[in-house]
Amino acid sequence: MRKKNLVVAIDAMGADSGPEMVVAGANLVKKHNSAISFIFCGDRRKIAPLIARYEALSSGVSIEHTDKSISAEQKPRDAVRKGRDSSMALAIQLVGDRRAHCAVSAGNTGALMSLSTFILRPLEGVRRPAICGLLPTRKGYCCMLDLGANLQADVKNLTQFAIMGGVFYRIVKREENPVVALLNVGVEHIKGREEIKEAGKILSKATIVNYGGFVEGHDITKGDVHVIVTDGFTGNVVLKTLEGVSRSLTHVSKRILLRSVFGIAALCIGMPAFLRLKTILNPSKYNGAVMLGLNGIVIKSHGGTDPKGFAMASKVGISLAGQDFTRHLKNNLRKDDFQGATEEIGN
Amino acid sequence: MRKKNLVVAIDAMGADSGPEMVVAGANLVKKHNSAISFIFCGDRRKIAPLIARYEALSSGVSIEHTDKSISAEQKPRDAVRKGRDSSMALAIQLVGDRRAHCAVSAGNTGALMSLSTFILRPLEGVRRPAICGLLPTRKGYCCMLDLGANLQADVKNLTQFAIMGGVFYRIVKREENPVVALLNVGVEHIKGREEIKEAGKILSKATIVNYGGFVEGHDITKGDVHVIVTDGFTGNVVLKTLEGVSRSLTHVSKRILLRSVFGIAALCIGMPAFLRLKTILNPSKYNGAVMLGLNGIVIKSHGGTDPKGFAMASKVGISLAGQDFTRHLKNNLRKDDFQGATEEIGN
Repeated sequence: MRKKNLVVAIDAMGADSGPEMVVAGANLVKKHNSAISFIFCGDRRKIAPLIARYEALSSGVSIEHTDKSISAEQKPRDAVRKGRDSSMALAIQLVGDRRAHCAVSAGNTGALMSLSTFILRPLEGVRRPAICGLLPTRKGYCCMLDLGANLQADVKNLTQFAIMGGVFYRIVKREENPVVALLNVGVEHIKGREEIKEAGKILSKATIVNYGGFVEGHDITKGDVHVIVTDGFTGNVVLKTLEGVSRSLTHVSKRILLRSVFGIAALCIGMPAFLRLKTILNPSKYNGAVMLGLNGIVIKSHGGTDPKGFAMASKVGISLAGQDFTRHLKNNLRKDDFQGATEEIGN
Repeated sequence: MRKKNLVVAIDAMGADSGPEMVVAGANLVKKHNSAISFIFCGDRRKIAPLIARYEALSSGVSIEHTDKSISAEQKPRDAVRKGRDSSMALAIQLVGDRRAHCAVSAGNTGALMSLSTFILRPLEGVRRPAICGLLPTRKGYCCMLDLGANLQADVKNLTQFAIMGGVFYRIVKREENPVVALLNVGVEHIKGREEIKEAGKILSKATIVNYGGFVEGHDITKGDVHVIVTDGFTGNVVLKTLEGVSRSLTHVSKRILLRSVFGIAALCIGMPAFLRLKTILNPSKYNGAVMLGLNGIVIKSHGGTDPKGFAMASKVGISLAGQDFTRHLKNNLRKDDFQGATEEIGN
């Protein structure tokens, strides 16, 4: 991180399990990096006693009070109409007002995207922001987008996601020329939905992207491409499927290994290796997706994560803010290529 | 299996690796069940020498010759127009002519669905057949459809898939009242694409289905529902993602365990447990999806499977044929409820 004294705005009321988890997560961050400041947005009566529990949070912490919060059931449209004084909106507004360098929320994804887009506005030329996150692969990480902001994505959306995803990966992973691919049901150019085939044609001609063609589901964890582009419905289902498999496998492996004496012995002897494997399989290690394409950094944490996972999400925001991510993204998207690639297909 | 002397029509030319794998797979089936007969459809000059390699295939085996086959690149439309004398079409036609009880192909999915629909015709009332397969869960199996026949699915398609999937699970897994769910990006009724929300409303009122609401990606391997319904694009991506994770995990676990002496010792001692785990993770164990909703049984095998996987797919067909699956499905779909549930939404 290059910058110190970064300020993180936290939607304290967004997590499924309430503000306890969020404050505990912030504490983990602060213990390792005391230069970070937090502004907790939410109900002071609930948050203040929680903050008081942690010594690390005794300085560099403030509260923006509101007793309103966005529920899991709130529709994105309503969030913008009625939720402007919610804890989520306050956190985003702090980024808009440049009082915070990033905002982190574990709340309603649709509402977070609508409020972020409404308050921070998309970067010039960006039609729809997308949720973008890192996933573990055999060879390291790939980034995938959209993970749930847009239930449908047309040709122009997919093309822009590809370009933004490439820039994101270049900045975050310092990979000079990341390979960007479109998720499809086959690798042959005749396969798949029309908008994907069309986006493939445009990207194969665009110079701003190192386009690697179509990939299929089994390529996601393989690690041969750096960025995987899809619509928000498919991306969300894939992300959650991966989380589910990881949980189910831990569950099943334990059951099978603990069933026999040899299995238990193997578990004991191989413990360091198993712990390493468990770390790789742990979804909270990859928590924290960025709302990509906005004038400001907003991080979406999994609603059901634990303090470690929430700390991880906050660190994603801190790392992006420390690298002045929004400016870099803006500069990259200003290139004529971006407009060229996405204007070819009209409006 | 209740019936003996079942005849399986095989598209010998469909697999990625050629007819060797297919014939080797048939040999595995025949070695365990000599009462099964095979009709291999394809190039006699290529198939005959392969059959001659296996003693088990010395009787109850014949060849329907054609030198035409469907390529991976062939469009579904063209398959019907130009591929009527292909190995794939011949295998399906044998089912249509009642010379075979089921057909198995590892070829082009789109072409297989078009040719099957064209030759066998959908069951009365079925708008679009779907590809339906079993997946391993923590508690056993779930069935998922559509796995790739329809890149989009409207309200009526989703509703029909739900009903057909329920009947499939009841017959195949002998589960009296299987729970059927729609795959979505959230469990709240306001979440997701319009057609899914609409299908959810209809299914919650339908008596023919034990509707369990929406499930998310992480519920797929959890095993709380028996049937998961989605469009063919999402289903295909999920299926292949699961296959990819299973391969990647085997790869990564081996690497981690073989890196240290303790890891190697753990592997040796826990070998039986690891082998059990590997069996659960093995995609070829779950190979063989049925083209659901047709007047006849057609099984789609993974194109890149091994002989064991192809044998597995053939066994799925044999098992369905032995249970007189098509008649059962037809009887269940004839119920007024089916028409009622799917007619409510007009055409």
